[in-house]
Amino acid sequence: MAMVCLSDFEAYAKKYLPKIAWDYFAAGADDCNTRDENILAYKRIRFRPRMLRDVSMMDIRTKILGTEISFPVGIAPTGFHQLAWPDGEKSTARAAKAMNTCYIASTYSTCTLEEISTAAPGGFRWFQLYIHRNRAASQQLVQRAEALGFQGLVLTTDVPYTGKRRDDIRNGFRLPPHMKVKNLERDFEVCKMSLLDPSVTWNDIYWLRSLTHLPIIIKGILTKEDAELAVRHGVQGIIVSNHGGRQLDEGPATVDALIEVVEGVQGRAEVYLDGGIRKGSDVLKALALGAKCVFIGRPALWGLTYKGEEGLQDVLRILQDEFRLSMALAGCASVSEIGRHLVQFSKL
Amino acid sequence: MAMVCLSDFEAYAKKYLPKIAWDYFAAGADDCNTRDENILAYKRIRFRPRMLRDVSMMDIRTKILGTEISFPVGIAPTGFHQLAWPDGEKSTARAAKAMNTCYIASTYSTCTLEEISTAAPGGFRWFQLYIHRNRAASQQLVQRAEALGFQGLVLTTDVPYTGKRRDDIRNGFRLPPHMKVKNLERDFEVCKMSLLDPSVTWNDIYWLRSLTHLPIIIKGILTKEDAELAVRHGVQGIIVSNHGGRQLDEGPATVDALIEVVEGVQGRAEVYLDGGIRKGSDVLKALALGAKCVFIGRPALWGLTYKGEEGLQDVLRILQDEFRLSMALAGCASVSEIGRHLVQFSKL
Amino acid sequence: MAMVCLSDFEAYAKKYLPKIAWDYFAAGADDCNTRDENILAYKRIRFRPRMLRDVSMMDIRTKILGTEISFPVGIAPTGFHQLAWPDGEKSTARAAKAMNTCYIASTYSTCTLEEISTAAPGGFRWFQLYIHRNRAASQQLVQRAEALGFQGLVLTTDVPYTGKRRDDIRNGFRLPPHMKVKNLERDFEVCKMSLLDPSVTWNDIYWLRSLTHLPIIIKGILTKEDAELAVRHGVQGIIVSNHGGRQLDEGPATVDALIEVVEGVQGRAEVYLDGGIRKGSDVLKALALGAKCVFIGRPALWGLTYKGEEGLQDVLRILQDEFRLSMALAGCASVSEIGRHLVQFSKL
Amino acid sequence: MAMVCLSDFEAYAKKYLPKIAWDYFAAGADDCNTRDENILAYKRIRFRPRMLRDVSMMDIRTKILGTEISFPVGIAPTGFHQLAWPDGEKSTARAAKAMNTCYIASTYSTCTLEEISTAAPGGFRWFQLYIHRNRAASQQLVQRAEALGFQGLVLTTDVPYTGKRRDDIRNGFRLPPHMKVKNLERDFEVCKMSLLDPSVTWNDIYWLRSLTHLPIIIKGILTKEDAELAVRHGVQGIIVSNHGGRQLDEGPATVDALIEVVEGVQGRAEVYLDGGIRKGSDVLKALALGAKCVFIGRPALWGLTYKGEEGLQDVLRILQDEFRLSMALAGCASVSEIGRHLVQFSKL
Repeated sequence: MAMVCLSDFEAYAKKYLPKIAWDYFAAGADDCNTRDENILAYKRIRFRPRMLRDVSMMDIRTKILGTEISFPVGIAPTGFHQLAWPDGEKSTARAAKAMNTCYIASTYSTCTLEEISTAAPGGFRWFQLYIHRNRAASQQLVQRAEALGFQGLVLTTDVPYTGKRRDDIRNGFRLPPHMKVKNLERDFEVCKMSLLDPSVTWNDIYWLRSLTHLPIIIKGILTKEDAELAVRHGVQGIIVSNHGGRQLDEGPATVDALIEVVEGVQGRAEVYLDGGIRKGSDVLKALALGAKCVFIGRPALWGLTYKGEEGLQDVLRILQDEFRLSMALAGCASVSEIGRHLVQFSKL
Repeated sequence: MAMVCLSDFEAYAKKYLPKIAWDYFAAGADDCNTRDENILAYKRIRFRPRMLRDVSMMDIRTKILGTEISFPVGIAPTGFHQLAWPDGEKSTARAAKAMNTCYIASTYSTCTLEEISTAAPGGFRWFQLYIHRNRAASQQLVQRAEALGFQGLVLTTDVPYTGKRRDDIRNGFRLPPHMKVKNLERDFEVCKMSLLDPSVTWNDIYWLRSLTHLPIIIKGILTKEDAELAVRHGVQGIIVSNHGGRQLDEGPATVDALIEVVEGVQGRAEVYLDGGIRKGSDVLKALALGAKCVFIGRPALWGLTYKGEEGLQDVLRILQDEFRLSMALAGCASVSEIGRHLVQFSKL
Repeated sequence: MAMVCLSDFEAYAKKYLPKIAWDYFAAGADDCNTRDENILAYKRIRFRPRMLRDVSMMDIRTKILGTEISFPVGIAPTGFHQLAWPDGEKSTARAAKAMNTCYIASTYSTCTLEEISTAAPGGFRWFQLYIHRNRAASQQLVQRAEALGFQGLVLTTDVPYTGKRRDDIRNGFRLPPHMKVKNLERDFEVCKMSLLDPSVTWNDIYWLRSLTHLPIIIKGILTKEDAELAVRHGVQGIIVSNHGGRQLDEGPATVDALIEVVEGVQGRAEVYLDGGIRKGSDVLKALALGAKCVFIGRPALWGLTYKGEEGLQDVLRILQDEFRLSMALAGCASVSEIGRHLVQFSKL
Repeated sequence: MAMVCLSDFEAYAKKYLPKIAWDYFAAGADDCNTRDENILAYKRIRFRPRMLRDVSMMDIRTKILGTEISFPVGIAPTGFHQLAWPDGEKSTARAAKAMNTCYIASTYSTCTLEEISTAAPGGFRWFQLYIHRNRAASQQLVQRAEALGFQGLVLTTDVPYTGKRRDDIRNGFRLPPHMKVKNLERDFEVCKMSLLDPSVTWNDIYWLRSLTHLPIIIKGILTKEDAELAVRHGVQGIIVSNHGGRQLDEGPATVDALIEVVEGVQGRAEVYLDGGIRKGSDVLKALALGAKCVFIGRPALWGLTYKGEEGLQDVLRILQDEFRLSMALAGCASVSEIGRHLVQFSKL
């Protein structure tokens, strides 16, 4: 089977993963409308490609918070990579480093932050944080990450409680006994997530700021009002995200929300996006609408499932080639030439 | 089979009910477009969820016409509960009381109002009325209901004649011989409904008012013009309803009509809705658009079919949990925080 | 099999008619988009039903060009009724008379005008005319019709050439040898229709006017510009029609075109419609948008196929019952209460 | 099997072509959305047909850049006609000449320009050019074409790199060994196309102009900005094209882009279109929106596959008959009567 596009990796993962693991990765909340809309929304965006521009020298690099990456696609935080590949997040870290891009390691990794760091020393990584009821535990995680050289702190804001994912309930999903959420001190019941603190508010950004010198990136923002608040609370970056459609069903597709978030931010922070990226041209659309970079969640897991570190590199390389080709065919030779003029909304 | 969401109860009912009963409950008028639109209309409404609000203490209670209920979902009036479960409306009344919510008992119950009252003494109930050609019979029903402690009178306005439900005609639907419409003095032919008075007008509200001290709630309103008339005739509440799509096919979905009814009422009466509620997030959307409470029809019947009183409690509990979770994920800790700002209409 | 709605008759006809005849009646031009749009367009129109109006006395009668009919549905001109039932147009004429409505007999009938007249003496009929290259033949037809008591002359304007109906070409459709287009002097090759005159213009209305005292109704108008021209040329009625989608594919659905035609006419002529009527509520929508009456084509043929005169009466009676019920449920007790306020266009 | 419409030829080709050849001709980039939108976009355009115009004498001829063709449909440049029929482009040239229309021969023909010229002497032909890295080779091609009597030079602008066509990658598509891209000096690897120069810009139009007296037509323009640039650089014609959806997926359908290109050009050059033409009425729509002529790609290949020169003539004749009929049914007797007033955009 030739691996030509990301759907090929999806088909592979669906075929070879245990059903319970596939279902967990694929899950959306409730009717999965938002999960699916994340993808469908891209179909309603049409390019306005420009011709006869010199695209012989393509430069697809960008910088996020000052660090250069090989192209504007990083790895979104997702949990439990050992469900996809025995080496888990260690493979993810190696693939991201090999492809010279950013990897956001999840609190709910099945490897420790230390293992991740050691697996790919010098890699460009951010750490994703949930604030727990036990604030000391969260503080310790932040400070461990900073000490290990993580370069950014990503605060997830859309999980005061876990979304209702029907298949996980039916399957009675829980981690197999030989896997652990190693970053947390004791075993951890996923479906309860009773450790998370639903009382977190904007003021906790100040608390986080007091713990670390790392830039703070806030993840899960979907409105211009919240974007405005994020900027006022001093975050450096915003990831427009609906948690892959796993939290509140029937919120907006991320690429639709991106437009109003960019409007709310007005250049005062960097804006990123995750959700629904399946082709290089999706990346181009997100950038045209104001994202500085996008992050992939499920496609990274499919790549890991296929061949671990190598499979994830395959996924990233395909996206890179597709992104470069889309740019060239749309008439852009470098990321700086991408702008709002490049897209319009389709009548359908 | 795990009962995870309301569709599971629907599948159960479709599988285990006699076809003629399933068809009767499922029936819509003509092509069933309005029945189906009631559900589809929710898909076109998107949340604008807000993050980082303290949602650790969730309060989902509300009041309707001054009486507190545990969450803004009641039981809509539907007929013939014995088709679903041997104890019929007695089970419905018990479940509603156990869940501390409002049950609107139908004129066409297969138990008497007295049986319903005795089954769940002290429960919060309204009585749904059709005005019959024989006004004395209607008067007697109203006064019986008031005497029995029903706390509101719901006048159904959209059945001057019964809608054309093709499957009921094909099936020759009628109640099995051992069931009776016990509230009415003699046996009752459903498909004719020739007892109903098609000459009822707004003036009859004054007649009703003269019969009872109960608050009058009017059910079946779909336009702002009628909402305005209802207010002017002194009703306390309006249920936006198209009778589950069983009367005039190709009228508006109730959640679409809700918007103009709320506009017409301008706070001068409480506005409720029934039709198409299948998930907790549907409730949240209806409240965001101005409904004070919603009522469920078919899902209550599926719950009864599954396990009588207990099955209906399961249905209500699932809706309650889903509603609470949706609220939290949208950033609302109490019903008073829900408002129009929470939703937008999708491009599709 | 119970015959509950018009689709039941369609299913019957599809099952029992010879394929070549079914295909001929069902045919649309090219991809059949307009044929199908005629029906789909009604789904995008939503009622705004009004409640608590006295609908105990329903009056569904109307008048067209001064003649009362029992309800606003007549029989559109379609060819070759013997393909559906041995007695052909004689049965059609009898059914229309029995139901007290208008029958527009087609030039391409398989019975003569005289046979039609004799079959149902005193029935309310119009005669549909194609203008032939041989003007004398057309003149003779018009004068025969007038002498036989036909009360209106319907000029079809959308067939300068026959539309491309793929199935008819594949089937090599032609009338069976024992059927004739009896109104024309010699045998007639349908698929060529080389007798029709494609040079007809608006001036020919004046020529027609010189031949007869009958009111002239023009059929096939789809734009406000042509509606304006029709009025200026003195026609008494306009049938908004796209020939059942059999002529120019991808023109407008008739109920969509109705709006602009009514706008163009501004009350200076009566406006009717054919195409896509399948339910009583479709009739109500067309009237709400300004049609005085609608005409059914294929459903009449399905009725004939089912049981000749009796089957067509069944079809008309179902439409009548559905129309009356829709009116009542929308809050109208008589045709004069139907108006533009009764409908809105759906978001989908 | 009767060949009634273009879909019949498509079905034939799909059935009889080797899969690898069918896939190559059918291929679209990525998800093939633009390929499919090219066709779907026509469904959203509705005619506003006018009645009672004299359409007895139909004149469907037009002129492009001063040369008369029998109707406004020519043959778009597509590669490798020997994959469809042994005689390849020689058959194409003969069919185009027999039907008195324009054939745009592709650089990537499997016959030489000389063979094409000799096969149909005196035929009306344009030559389609890709600019290669080796400019001398391109210059030589242009000058050969001019010397052979080609009457226009079509510069393709949307292939700085080849689009990603998944099936071709999976199939490992390449020409069979016995076929050659004969116009180029040495064998040619299709999937690499590494000979094409991605550094071409608008200034190269001046270079082309210096090489030849032929009118220059620019192909691949999709925005009004580029249309304006084309006019300013002195081109005589613009072909609105997205390369049949084979280059940048999710650009606009050509008939949608046509509108803004016509707006940008403001009559200063002729505008043509290719992509999605499947029926005569599609041609009429494109002309109504401002195209002077359209070109067919895949349908020509299906015709060749069916019966070579003769099959392609069949395809053209069907389009001609359908176009003439659509014009007549829309009320236009000559191409000069076609205009913007003839179409509107559908609500769906």
